[in-house]
Amino acid sequence: MIDSRTLRVALLGAGSVGSQVAKMLLENRRELAARAGADLELVGIAVRDVDAKRDVELPRELLTTDAESLIRGADIVIELMGGIEPARTYILDAVNSGADVVTGNKALLAAHGAELFAATEQVGAEISYEASVAAAIPILRPLRDSLAGDNITRVLAIVNGSTNFILDRMDRFGETMEEASKLAFEAGYLEADPTLDVEGYDAAQKVTILAGLAFHSQIDADRVHREGITSVTAEQIEAAQSAGYVIKLLAVAERLTTPEGELGISARVYPALVPREHPLATVYAENNAVFVDAEAAGPLMFYGAGAGGVQTASAILGDVVSAARRHVAGGPGLNGSNHAGLPLLPIDDVVTKYQINLRVEDRPGVLSEVAGIFADFGVSVQTVEQSIADEGDGLATLIIGTHRAREKALSAVVDALGEANVTDRIVSVLRVEGAQ
Amino acid sequence: MIDSRTLRVALLGAGSVGSQVAKMLLENRRELAARAGADLELVGIAVRDVDAKRDVELPRELLTTDAESLIRGADIVIELMGGIEPARTYILDAVNSGADVVTGNKALLAAHGAELFAATEQVGAEISYEASVAAAIPILRPLRDSLAGDNITRVLAIVNGSTNFILDRMDRFGETMEEASKLAFEAGYLEADPTLDVEGYDAAQKVTILAGLAFHSQIDADRVHREGITSVTAEQIEAAQSAGYVIKLLAVAERLTTPEGELGISARVYPALVPREHPLATVYAENNAVFVDAEAAGPLMFYGAGAGGVQTASAILGDVVSAARRHVAGGPGLNGSNHAGLPLLPIDDVVTKYQINLRVEDRPGVLSEVAGIFADFGVSVQTVEQSIADEGDGLATLIIGTHRAREKALSAVVDALGEANVTDRIVSVLRVEGAQ
Repeated sequence: MIDSRTLRVALLGAGSVGSQVAKMLLENRRELAARAGADLELVGIAVRDVDAKRDVELPRELLTTDAESLIRGADIVIELMGGIEPARTYILDAVNSGADVVTGNKALLAAHGAELFAATEQVGAEISYEASVAAAIPILRPLRDSLAGDNITRVLAIVNGSTNFILDRMDRFGETMEEASKLAFEAGYLEADPTLDVEGYDAAQKVTILAGLAFHSQIDADRVHREGITSVTAEQIEAAQSAGYVIKLLAVAERLTTPEGELGISARVYPALVPREHPLATVYAENNAVFVDAEAAGPLMFYGAGAGGVQTASAILGDVVSAARRHVAGGPGLNGSNHAGLPLLPIDDVVTKYQINLRVEDRPGVLSEVAGIFADFGVSVQTVEQSIADEGDGLATLIIGTHRAREKALSAVVDALGEANVTDRIVSVLRVEGAQ
Repeated sequence: MIDSRTLRVALLGAGSVGSQVAKMLLENRRELAARAGADLELVGIAVRDVDAKRDVELPRELLTTDAESLIRGADIVIELMGGIEPARTYILDAVNSGADVVTGNKALLAAHGAELFAATEQVGAEISYEASVAAAIPILRPLRDSLAGDNITRVLAIVNGSTNFILDRMDRFGETMEEASKLAFEAGYLEADPTLDVEGYDAAQKVTILAGLAFHSQIDADRVHREGITSVTAEQIEAAQSAGYVIKLLAVAERLTTPEGELGISARVYPALVPREHPLATVYAENNAVFVDAEAAGPLMFYGAGAGGVQTASAILGDVVSAARRHVAGGPGLNGSNHAGLPLLPIDDVVTKYQINLRVEDRPGVLSEVAGIFADFGVSVQTVEQSIADEGDGLATLIIGTHRAREKALSAVVDALGEANVTDRIVSVLRVEGAQ
């Protein structure tokens, strides 16, 4: 079975993922050769500083600061430097020299995916990036290959481990956002600057990649609707619990037809209410899961660890072996897909259920007035719950669940509620995902 | 993007899956062409009786009883007849005429997979069979491609929907096996002859296929250790509940080293105790899930509907599009993999935890005697629970949980317990899977 061929593998970057990839390539060389049909020779590791201290000891003679030369002689280039430049230039160099590329660089793919895919297609090369979304959870190849004959309608994903960890601690252990965040820092799930995670930028990059493969349409990551978790309060979590929900930061990509008949994609990131009995509700701690609805296959879920050096290395090596098989036997790679070319629709076109939590004056006629506001904008109310807790301030809490409504109409309702005399304060407006 | 090439697709069989596949091929032809890079022309559907009544109306002019002629002119042959013959002969004919094959025939693959894979490899053809395990849930390609760089250590799978439905009804709704089975018949989950499902044959075929791809070793389906669900009682379900477990019919494939140092595979099917907090415990109703442990990736789970005509058609079409891409661009197929060639180990070599439920004489010294029997065979006891319910028969219930032990030692313990004077009856011996 083992081909006599040797493929030259160049690694760019030796951080927590890169050093694990190097270790696994060196330690499992025989077995990987049997699987790939060709020997995978790690010819060099490009780093900024060959003398830097690393988690995993790497052979000194493989380290180099000359990435350009390394790339020129390689059949497969693994890019694990992160960031936009010089990663982008190196990947284009690799592709143009005929090498296949494996990367886990979600920021780069979200920002420049279309450019990179176009370059690889032009020369018949392959760029694989299973590691860029949910680390070791196989999701991109299943979307691309296993579901290639089906029509995906929606992807609901928990793709940011640190925010899931924080929301889960708040939900299951009653911690405050501050306490849970502190734990997330200590466990290494949150960076010193947590903005990318807690503001949903990381999830927005990932949903851009998911939407591209699910809907064969390259969308612009900067235009993905994005709300982070910083506004989620213990009060909201508690209210969600008593209503049978859990709050999760969801990345949603959905095929939609607007009332005007435009077919497009909605891609959005926000904290949403998920019914307790939904499979996504039991994704605890820092785990990730991608829930896919397809017309024929029905609901599917892919679950596992969404981060970690060794886990991400597993996804990288899966792509490397697949690229090697392709080198030996030819054939199509993962690449991108844009034949559908659907437009990204604004958040206003999203249709979902909402739960609105209001503090209102506690007097007769208020409910009727509030209900009238919903009716004015054509938003149909499904449930109303009036809290009995009298806090002595002459106010009552109204929790209103809507039927499926357009975000545009709901926004108008929320604006009108905010201006209404009976309203003291809008406590929260949350979307419900995954409910019937 | 669309290749000018047309690929001729032949369909063998037009049952519940076949007719859906035909419908989707015809209805989605444009979109499938864009994804595959070639037009997929359904050139004919081989059936036993062209006038038979079908769920889906199919174009009369495509139906034929002449499978041989249909196969000779095809680029891709989809086999959905089921059974061993003539499916086996037709697939070999297709492969030898240079066609790629897509099939969901688990019985055939489990019995003759090695022969079929060898034939395809010899001529450079491809046989794809994602639909054969867990219908639309993408699991075989992820094992083969996404995890190609990792080492899978264990697969725990719920791959038989009807038995999962029955056990779930017993667990969540307190129904008897008889009541739950009746419901399963009525819902169409159980065949008139339920033997294949309830005796674990179906799951044994599927675990053979899973083990082949997970461990690169073709094993003999007939030698898979197999226990069905017919012996599961309401009493056992209740005892499992109070101990924090749920009983699931699990298909397990595991890489093992015996005490004698032999590396091999254990493949087995039996009703096992699964901890309530394990992701497999929440696989309800007729759903399927495959839980994979890999060295680097850690635990992963793939969840969804495990049966159904339209769901299975999704998996078939995923393979068809992948085969078409391969036809256009060349490259490796799914096929089988046997480069590791590990032997199938007997059930005696399995190491797991056990829970033994005993009725014993209710007098001092009994616990010590029972514990002594475990010690005699080197099986370490982790928990002992003595039931307080006095049924007036002078007997007590002992529930003994063991540490991890070899099946061989445990069997000896069970034999000795059966012969001991203090034992009235062994109520159940269940293996615990998925616990720490």
